[in-house]
Amino acid sequence: MRLATIRLGDTTAAVRVDGTTAVETGFPDVGALLRADALSAAATADGPRHDFTTADLAPVVPAPGKIVCVGLNYRTHILEMGRELPEYPTLFTKYAEALIGARDPIRLPPESHKVDWEGELAVIIGRRVRRASAEEAAAAIAGYAVLNDVTMRDYQYRTPQWLQGKTWEGSTPFGPVLATADELPAGAQLVTRVDGEEVQRASIDDLVFSPVELVRYISTIVTLQPGDVIATGTPGGVGHARRPERYLGAGQKLSTSIDGIGELSNVTVADGSAHTAVR
Amino acid sequence: MRLATIRLGDTTAAVRVDGTTAVETGFPDVGALLRADALSAAATADGPRHDFTTADLAPVVPAPGKIVCVGLNYRTHILEMGRELPEYPTLFTKYAEALIGARDPIRLPPESHKVDWEGELAVIIGRRVRRASAEEAAAAIAGYAVLNDVTMRDYQYRTPQWLQGKTWEGSTPFGPVLATADELPAGAQLVTRVDGEEVQRASIDDLVFSPVELVRYISTIVTLQPGDVIATGTPGGVGHARRPERYLGAGQKLSTSIDGIGELSNVTVADGSAHTAVR
Repeated sequence: MRLATIRLGDTTAAVRVDGTTAVETGFPDVGALLRADALSAAATADGPRHDFTTADLAPVVPAPGKIVCVGLNYRTHILEMGRELPEYPTLFTKYAEALIGARDPIRLPPESHKVDWEGELAVIIGRRVRRASAEEAAAAIAGYAVLNDVTMRDYQYRTPQWLQGKTWEGSTPFGPVLATADELPAGAQLVTRVDGEEVQRASIDDLVFSPVELVRYISTIVTLQPGDVIATGTPGGVGHARRPERYLGAGQKLSTSIDGIGELSNVTVADGSAHTAVR
Repeated sequence: MRLATIRLGDTTAAVRVDGTTAVETGFPDVGALLRADALSAAATADGPRHDFTTADLAPVVPAPGKIVCVGLNYRTHILEMGRELPEYPTLFTKYAEALIGARDPIRLPPESHKVDWEGELAVIIGRRVRRASAEEAAAAIAGYAVLNDVTMRDYQYRTPQWLQGKTWEGSTPFGPVLATADELPAGAQLVTRVDGEEVQRASIDDLVFSPVELVRYISTIVTLQPGDVIATGTPGGVGHARRPERYLGAGQKLSTSIDGIGELSNVTVADGSAHTAVR
């Protein structure tokens, strides 16, 4: 099953995606659907229909309570960098304000000149869990999405903690759908493209810490709740590690896809609002 | 004015604290009050009354949308460590699940053996703001509270990113009240005590990045919303920097106070729930 959150004027709706048709489920967004424990009910829900191919997509979970991001987590990439595999996952955060939909523009803030891509598999939690066993962790995963952890490298490295490079408003595409585990083929490929050129490719089976291991580890520390998101880390091929370094400019198309889930396709735009206070 | 969130059976109420009396304001918690832009209205609100001295205090904002924490930010402490004053604030995060009330027990998880204290001044946002000027930043601050950024040092230093040592469930006391700026005397002292022994003392005027500067800086990156919290950093005197190192054991009393705001007084308890899955 594939679920999405679509924008309908001033409101949103959680929809089931059947081929090219989006069927409303009665919930305002996929986060609300998960908090109502309605994943099974969504499979048979019937409501107004929309064309999914032209739908205005919101972030698949628009306001997760927590977004937990994982650092270096692809085996091949770590080994090719000459590093040892880590004993523990490196965890950091971004705030929900960073999220955008799968077809939204990515805002390039005037303050940063080093905006980089990080294609990732995202795990979406469907069940409240603390100190989960492997079995409980697997059952707590509602499904998977694609996320591009777009990063302002200059801000990321201003201080030892990465947050300020990771949570710029309106910078992180997330979607297009939540795909349940049965939709993901073995060895699903994660691919990132810039203006059509492939810049990252990896099998999601190459993760050092798997989705289940991440749910176990994180839930030791804090309760994971329905709608929470884990961004599982990015493989090699980011712009910052290239020689010469390579960053996104305005008007570029960033595409991020995972087999069985779908594609984020976002165009970068210069964020002109250099000084805006909103009340 | 001083505001708090008190627990009343299965519900909570935002109250105005007049001396030892808590007067209900009609809002379920201080976060909801701020999101309704009702800070002025709260000054004259009238409702059921409670004894504040024995009230069951929730975290003053129980579920902030964002908690932004600041690293090393006390001038005297940085200079005595022989370091240079930083050019940019170090920012990291904790999740709302970490928060507890001003009189709640602090849960010591069985997984950590290095639980440390970090008394801090917390800023509570009252107005939505992005790329704030100094004037807008000052106006965006609803008030101040005390927060103890209790930290599991073993987890903090497992990886380069601190999150996993900072966000343990039920570890971070936050309150007792939101005090508006006029309640804070110049040179207000932040004091942390363990079983009555003073372990940290600093003037909040010694902050390298002031509350206004922090609101400006953070709001460049992401919109600050009513109810969001900034924990402004801790002065010298933490247990991890002592020789020998010193950590909290079960049954100790951790007190954290700031002149004009009040005191957090929390007893540490061993968290026995080493394996719990909640549905």
